[in-house]
Order: sequence, then C-alpha cells, then structure tokens
Amino acid sequence: MPIYNFSAGPAAIPEPVLRIVQEELLNYRDSGMSVMELSHRGDLFGAILNEAVALFKELMQIPENYKVLFVPGGASMQFAMMPMNLTVNKKSAFIDTGVWSSKAIKEAQKYMEVQVLASSKDSNYSMIPDYDLDLLSGDEDYVHITTNNTIYGTRFHQIPELDKVPLIADMSSDILSKPYDLSKFAMIYAGAQKNLGPSGFAVVIIREDLLERSKEQEIPSLLNYKILAENNSMFNTPPTFGIYICKLVLEWIKEQGGAAAMEKINNAKADLLYDYLDHSDFYKATVAAPFRSIMNIPFVSPSAELDALFVQEAQQAGLKQLKGHRTVGGMRASIYNAMPIEGVEALVSFMKNFEAKNG
Amino acid sequence: MPIYNFSAGPAAIPEPVLRIVQEELLNYRDSGMSVMELSHRGDLFGAILNEAVALFKELMQIPENYKVLFVPGGASMQFAMMPMNLTVNKKSAFIDTGVWSSKAIKEAQKYMEVQVLASSKDSNYSMIPDYDLDLLSGDEDYVHITTNNTIYGTRFHQIPELDKVPLIADMSSDILSKPYDLSKFAMIYAGAQKNLGPSGFAVVIIREDLLERSKEQEIPSLLNYKILAENNSMFNTPPTFGIYICKLVLEWIKEQGGAAAMEKINNAKADLLYDYLDHSDFYKATVAAPFRSIMNIPFVSPSAELDALFVQEAQQAGLKQLKGHRTVGGMRASIYNAMPIEGVEALVSFMKNFEAKNG
Repeated sequence: MPIYNFSAGPAAIPEPVLRIVQEELLNYRDSGMSVMELSHRGDLFGAILNEAVALFKELMQIPENYKVLFVPGGASMQFAMMPMNLTVNKKSAFIDTGVWSSKAIKEAQKYMEVQVLASSKDSNYSMIPDYDLDLLSGDEDYVHITTNNTIYGTRFHQIPELDKVPLIADMSSDILSKPYDLSKFAMIYAGAQKNLGPSGFAVVIIREDLLERSKEQEIPSLLNYKILAENNSMFNTPPTFGIYICKLVLEWIKEQGGAAAMEKINNAKADLLYDYLDHSDFYKATVAAPFRSIMNIPFVSPSAELDALFVQEAQQAGLKQLKGHRTVGGMRASIYNAMPIEGVEALVSFMKNFEAKNG
Repeated sequence: MPIYNFSAGPAAIPEPVLRIVQEELLNYRDSGMSVMELSHRGDLFGAILNEAVALFKELMQIPENYKVLFVPGGASMQFAMMPMNLTVNKKSAFIDTGVWSSKAIKEAQKYMEVQVLASSKDSNYSMIPDYDLDLLSGDEDYVHITTNNTIYGTRFHQIPELDKVPLIADMSSDILSKPYDLSKFAMIYAGAQKNLGPSGFAVVIIREDLLERSKEQEIPSLLNYKILAENNSMFNTPPTFGIYICKLVLEWIKEQGGAAAMEKINNAKADLLYDYLDHSDFYKATVAAPFRSIMNIPFVSPSAELDALFVQEAQQAGLKQLKGHRTVGGMRASIYNAMPIEGVEALVSFMKNFEAKNG
C-alpha cells in the first residue's frame, strides 16, 4: 500500500531525496564518513553549504544585494530576531492572518510598538482581511505578512506594494511552491520543515542594507543577522545535516523545473481537490475561493463525528496525518512540493468512497 | 581501509547508530514515513522525545528536581540564554579556560557584570588555573565553568564545591564520557555534536528552582527556559531528526554499560595515547598530566612542517581530521565515546611509522 503523508509539518520529504540520504548515510562521497560527522569547517561541508546558497539564489532569482542565511530554531526564532535586529524607530506594522502572525506580533511587542493594520481574527482567520496601507506613517521599521497560513489554508494572492517601508514575509509554508518576486521584500524567512527539509532551522533571505541595523552589544551574537552574514551562517556549528538535506531538496526542485514548474504542479494538485470539494454536497472547503492556499487545504464533512471517522479510516488506508488543526477542526490536506499528484488522486478517490458509505 | 574520524565536532557517531538510522530512513516502525516526516505532536515522535529524556535521566542519574530540555542552536545559544534567563542580581562569575569560556563571558557581559575568578589565558589555556572561591561575594546569579576544553585538551579533574551560588557547566565535549554528580550543578548544557548526535541543538539539564527566574516579557519565548520546560521542549517544532539520533546514541551508551563503562573505555583509549606520547622523544603532548582531557588530546611533532606532513599522511591512511586548532597548532585527536579503541591503536601505530621515517 502506498503511503501519502499530508502532515502540515514536519512534512513529507521527496522520496528521491530520502533515497540519496539513505545511500550516503555512512559514506559521503568516499570520505568514509557520514555528512553529520563532517567538520563544518572542512571542504566537504563547505561545498554543501555553498551549493545550498547558490541553489536558493538560482531557484528564487534572488537579487545580488541579498544574503542567504541558515539560522537555528525555525520561524519562531525569527519572530524574536526581527525586532531584536531590525528595530530603529521601535515601530512596526503587521497584517494578522492567524496564529503564526499573532505569535510574531507577541514577540515583536517585547521590543517595539506594533500596529495591526488589519486582522481576520473575527472570521477565525478564514480569509485575508482588507488592509489600508495609507494607515502607515512611513517611519515603521518594517511591515510583516505571512504569505501562506498553514492552519487555515489561506494565502495572499497579491503581495502588498510598499514604497518606503520594508516588507518582511514569513514564507514558511509556501517558499519555493511558486515564484515570488523577491525584490518586493526586504526580507523573507521560512522554517525548513515544510518545503525545505527537516525541522530545526530556518532560511533567512535578507537585503544587505538591513544588516546595518543589528547592534552588536544588544543582541546575542548567534542571533545577530550581521554576524551570521559575515560568518556565512557559521558563527557557531550550524545544523549541518539539515542543511545537507535542504541542499538535496533544492536540487530535486531544480530537476522538477524550478519554482515555476512547482507552481504548475501545485496548482494542478490543489485544483483537483478544490474542484471535487466545490462539487460535493457532502464535503465543504472552509476557505472561500479568493483566499485559498495551494499548500494547505482544510475541509469538513457534515459532522464532527464523521470527521473523526474520516481521519481514522484514511489513516488505515495509508493517507496519513489528515486531522485538521484543533482551532479549525475537520480535515486538512497539506500538499507541499513533495506530495505527488498521485497522493491527491488517492485522497479524492478515498473521499468518494467515504461519501458513498456515509453520505 | 577502516576510516577513523578524529574530528573535534561535528564528530563521529557510533556506527551501529548510523546503521539503524540508515535502515529506518524511509520507513520508521512500519509507518511508511521517515522520522523527519513525522508530526512532532504525534505519538511516534512523542515516544522518541520521552525516551530520550528518560535515557538522560537514567544514564546521568539526574535528580528528580531537574528538567531535561532540547534547545536549538548549540552551546553558543546557551551563552546568551543563561544571562537572559537567570539574571537576578546582574552578577556572575566565570573561570576562563579557553575560547569557549571567553565567548560565554562575552555574551554574559551584554546582560550582567562578569567577574573572572581565574584565567589560564597567559599560558594559552594549556592548564586549568588555580581559583579562589572566597573571591565570591555570594550574591552572584551563578558561577560558570567549562568542564572539558575541546581546543586545548584540558579538563577540570575536580569540580568546584559551592554552597550558595549555583554552579553551571558547559559539558559540550565531555557529557556522558564519564559519570558526573549532577547534584553539584544547578544547570549543565552540551551542544549535541560531540558525544550526543548531529549538530544544531543542545541539551540543557536545569534545576527546577532556576526556571522561576525567567521573565516572560523580557525574553524571546523560544529562548525562555521556563516556557521550554512547560512545553516539554516543544514550544515550536523541535529538531526532531536530531533528537531521534540522540536517542539512538543514548541507547548505544546504555548498551555499552552507561557512563561508568564509557569512562573506563575512554580512560583506556586516552592512556594508550598519553603513554605513547610521554615515552616518545619525537612527539610531545601539549598539556601537563594534572589537566589532561580524556576526550581531546593535542600533541606536536618536532616542527610545524612535520605536523603538516603528519596530518596529510594520516588523512591518506584513513585517520581523518587530526589537524590541531589554529590557536594551538600541531595535531589533535578527539576521541569521544564513538571512537573505538581500535582507532587509537591505529593512530599510535601510524605515529610509530611516521616517527621511524621522519625521526
């Protein structure tokens, strides 16, 4: 029985990547050592790190004046590092589109004043709220958005256009799922465990002028963007094995045809599921069309009891980790880059059978 | 040709552990998923985390009133988290025994006054300095030591006995290499990449009363010991794959007979090398007997040229990563738990041949 893993994160890794990791596990390139046993200062790991950075630059078409950093700790660490490093006027603005935005706001408030430009909290974050950029005074240190909201299955279809104030985005759940014009952002970041590799670190892509804001005496060295950039992400020992897997994932994305090709595949996967949901009298997508994510698709059956039965029977049928987040309920299919279209086809087929039995 | 990896870190992982990781890589316990693809909130990973904590408690005989935490970022993150979390009187004291102590001091100075009780900097850290605990005023927030100094190959053979002031130790390079009486410490921590697993996180073992010092509003949530303890190290997605490998390493240590058995093996390995060095007219250990580490053993040949030739020829003979740290020069054999005695025998045998050719 094929297994399809719909986990929101840590999420599925492309199977060809896992096969390479397995094959090289005890002996990387005839070194007689595992990648996790290599000195981070040696040539073999140095090449891995540099290739990973080069692949990000190529696949995301990152402008010359940006740095790519690997930072321990996931997106939550960035929630704190942004205000610690980037505060000048002690003012920021956020568009609040869910639990992760809210957590980022909470950390920022420890260091600076936060203006919430708009929030969809009242609709349980089932949409992207309208926002008015004229509410900005122009001296904010940055404006923050979450491009894709893992829990609710919403995303920004349009990126806010800002002239003066730097825009920062948490792209944890949609980085490299589609092309983004990086020049619109002063910084983006993503926890690794959805589209990039195993959990435990984040990638940060930051415009160089922002690095000048980091004040050495006020920030732990390991959390200082400028120090990380000066040390090529090796102020201390970085998460070497995770970066190696990330590099393999990036190579796999390149083989698929890059971010534009991924978007095409991801759209096809999402369309398949949304089309089925929109024509069903039994299931219902919880997000309206204008706000729908192509990465995380929440849906419900007619009752909480049937939802629970669905998750249980799907699990037995090899469709794993479909339970929705507790704040939304129902089911959630996370179909990141690594999910093949066959997985979504298997899900729709299971859904039809389940409806026939229980509808 | 057998390969022996003498890297100071990331260091060798026990081969039986790597074989389990390889075997389970695509399918952990018939789940059809890799450990790195498991939700951190699910039963399978939950069991891994809880077993890792239980093994630490068993192998290190940790008293009941201590918490075991996994924290992203290595020992360098702890250099900042200690002062951020544990400052009450804004005073601490350090014994400076090397680069890592100095880095910890530098981070602490951002948050509190630091008294350096003693330093061996003038002897290039080739010894543990004498120190006078009567210099403490008693209201310090903590005293900090580094039990084993990776770069210089020194260690504390006696742990300072403190009544009033909490003692904290960086045990990155000797955790579980021998038994330690944890009750002498208020907190210990260790970066994972020497004796515990892959790089990217640290284990922190902290007495519960210290958790009350963490002030929520002043510390990033992810760096707050109290919040980490309350969330069983899962405030956010922890480095799941690293924790899994750490659990396997702990199981391997238990199979060897635990910390006391490891010490016996480690003493035998170190004695073999030190005995040879002390009877050689060609090589010289750089550390005097009273201060010698059993984990990291630096030594020199008669000249820098011969040192370079030694490292190069050893590499070709399968004895990897023997180059000494740039601040000490010469060679350094890091012989952590995972290094079998056969590796040290192979090293001594190579050293004899090298001396015969070049002596």
